[in-house]
Amino acid sequence: MDKSTLDRSTSVNQIVVLNAACELFAEHGYQATSMRDIANAVGVRAPSLYNHVSAKQDILYKIMETAMDRAIDALAVALDGVEDIAEQLRKATESLVLDFLRYPSEVTVCNNEVRSLQPANRVAIVAKRDHYAAQVRKIIDQGCRGGQFHTRSPQLAAFAVLEMGNGAKSWFRPGGRYSDVFVAREYGEFALRVVGYQPPC
Amino acid sequence: MDKSTLDRSTSVNQIVVLNAACELFAEHGYQATSMRDIANAVGVRAPSLYNHVSAKQDILYKIMETAMDRAIDALAVALDGVEDIAEQLRKATESLVLDFLRYPSEVTVCNNEVRSLQPANRVAIVAKRDHYAAQVRKIIDQGCRGGQFHTRSPQLAAFAVLEMGNGAKSWFRPGGRYSDVFVAREYGEFALRVVGYQPPC
Repeated sequence: MDKSTLDRSTSVNQIVVLNAACELFAEHGYQATSMRDIANAVGVRAPSLYNHVSAKQDILYKIMETAMDRAIDALAVALDGVEDIAEQLRKATESLVLDFLRYPSEVTVCNNEVRSLQPANRVAIVAKRDHYAAQVRKIIDQGCRGGQFHTRSPQLAAFAVLEMGNGAKSWFRPGGRYSDVFVAREYGEFALRVVGYQPPC
Repeated sequence: MDKSTLDRSTSVNQIVVLNAACELFAEHGYQATSMRDIANAVGVRAPSLYNHVSAKQDILYKIMETAMDRAIDALAVALDGVEDIAEQLRKATESLVLDFLRYPSEVTVCNNEVRSLQPANRVAIVAKRDHYAAQVRKIIDQGCRGGQFHTRSPQLAAFAVLEMGNGAKSWFRPGGRYSDVFVAREYGEFALRVVGYQPPC
């Protein structure tokens, strides 16, 4: 694939295209969305779209790369300077759940369309996903070794923590009963419960 | 829509068609799968497919109806005769996670393709999904009222319990490191932790 157009810089027009494509991919799926659909959504003719992006696969890759990098950066910010292992798990979970709630379409595309990535793109995106998951797993392992967390299945606990807020993007509505920050805090508490955290007496 | 062909009975040939269609919908999405693709997958010509099913929408509805009814029935069996509220939540979670692990394609279609259902079909499937979720919610509410469960957000806890095993179908492999029964048991334990269950002293 030729990612040169996308890699050089992401211009404002490209962002408009990526956002429109992301909504269409989330709603209809990647395979059911054509470049013509994307062109229609941004109000240009299909040939003009190629001034901004080179291929539908490049759009998908860029959406997922951007989403994963944003989540990874947010996790780094959330964990920056946090020493206590329980606080690390709480902050990591809050960061993850806020990402689910604030970028539901991007997360839906990341969840559903790994299957649609070409092999080299898939390797790159799965590596980012694994890197993210490994950081959460590392926190849980460290908490178990240090005696603050108590679970016989740290790996399964990590999977549960990573997954349990994923569905929240389906029912969460901005301005609804719960704020995103409240939901994230509650899931942070659930994560500590899942790993059997016992606060120091 | 005309569901008469499907409603009268589900013949062996229909089951073959539904299974093949389910795999295709899970892999490529409903909108990207044609009746011709389904016909190819079962080794018949497209016109012959209409001897077994009347339309692609009917196939989708039947897949999701079957999946939801199976999960609802399994939950009823799991809860049958179980009085203790903590055991109810444990059994309900185990039943749900086993369903995720044993029917990953059906669950993927149920997760992703509610958007592809025609309005009347969508109402029917969402009603079944809500009925399932309401039973889990009821157990958690009852445990909170009875003082066995301790969470300030029973609704969010219910969402977390319903969701946390959903991702397991992605990494779980039959014959792999964990058995499906072991994974289900661990998630049952996680569910009790999420709701803050405290066993009687």
